[in-house]
Amino acid sequence: MNYYSDSINTLIQELSGLPGIGPKSAGRLAFHILEMPEDRVKSLSESILTARQKIRLCRECFNLSDEEVCTVCGNPKRNHKLIMVVEEPADLVAYEKTGQYDGVYHVLHGAVNPMIGVQPENLKLKELLQRLAREDVEEVIVATNSTVEGEATALLISKYVKQAGIRVTRIASGVPVGGALEYVDEMTLYRALEGRIDL
Amino acid sequence: MNYYSDSINTLIQELSGLPGIGPKSAGRLAFHILEMPEDRVKSLSESILTARQKIRLCRECFNLSDEEVCTVCGNPKRNHKLIMVVEEPADLVAYEKTGQYDGVYHVLHGAVNPMIGVQPENLKLKELLQRLAREDVEEVIVATNSTVEGEATALLISKYVKQAGIRVTRIASGVPVGGALEYVDEMTLYRALEGRIDL
Repeated sequence: MNYYSDSINTLIQELSGLPGIGPKSAGRLAFHILEMPEDRVKSLSESILTARQKIRLCRECFNLSDEEVCTVCGNPKRNHKLIMVVEEPADLVAYEKTGQYDGVYHVLHGAVNPMIGVQPENLKLKELLQRLAREDVEEVIVATNSTVEGEATALLISKYVKQAGIRVTRIASGVPVGGALEYVDEMTLYRALEGRIDL
Repeated sequence: MNYYSDSINTLIQELSGLPGIGPKSAGRLAFHILEMPEDRVKSLSESILTARQKIRLCRECFNLSDEEVCTVCGNPKRNHKLIMVVEEPADLVAYEKTGQYDGVYHVLHGAVNPMIGVQPENLKLKELLQRLAREDVEEVIVATNSTVEGEATALLISKYVKQAGIRVTRIASGVPVGGALEYVDEMTLYRALEGRIDL
């Protein structure tokens, strides 16, 4: 790796540490950066550090935020009696993009996964229960992933929320819109059948 | 795009400007960066700016370098009478990785391409001729790409170098090592035939 000068080597090494960027694309990125106007490089470099330094977790829902309370929780037009529980901030963004959900969220920052040492106490689960005790919540929608870990987490949450005497629901599993049955796996087909609704 | 806080939006926008990084991967990268330890983010951010600020072109060959003269040109063990002309710094690195070349280089920073307005005067071509006049060079190896632009540039260079009374050669075109003839295009097969050598 001493084909490059020191500063390029360092840059390539740093870029290779990012997800989805191997040594080859790191090299390509580095050469691109070296040919960018210096002010553009400066704003790229600054945006990385600024974002990391400014970012914190919303006091209410643990979404990523620049402020103490995130834009969703801080919006009085949202229905604060409806809480959707998601695993990651990216899942929240996915639902926000639908434009069809007007409740608030709770971000767990993971799912129960004993294999890699993620226990319920590593998630923002206690904080959810405190929130349910503190606020006037009518329904908790569990939108964890449809994976083994996501389902296990959903079960755990449903148990606690029921104990608190609050309605708890799970987003539907089924055939994706636009999906041809032929290519859908058996488990999804089974879930779609089980979850059928009256027309 | 107002699903995120301002600092995340800015970061995603900056990352999307890099080659091979679309809005989706920019989002994934941004979330990863936000979860990285702050000191790692700091060194990533700094490496980008430092590389861009430190980098300059080698006085001799126009390779990227932290110093006035790059590591290849500054190496007295290299044969300075043998100059390989390449289009980009990445091409130089590709040949360095072979470990089989002990001459020096000359980086053109492009190839003649009138379609996108790259004229001979936009390349480090004049600098190559000045170098040939100034130094004691025995051979110029033209290693521009095997594309229309690369071949046109090679022709141009060969004309000038011959005028200067110096030997000029072109790297061979042919079947890639490990390549099955069946899958090689006609032009390459033709070149391989033309360039056949005695055994």
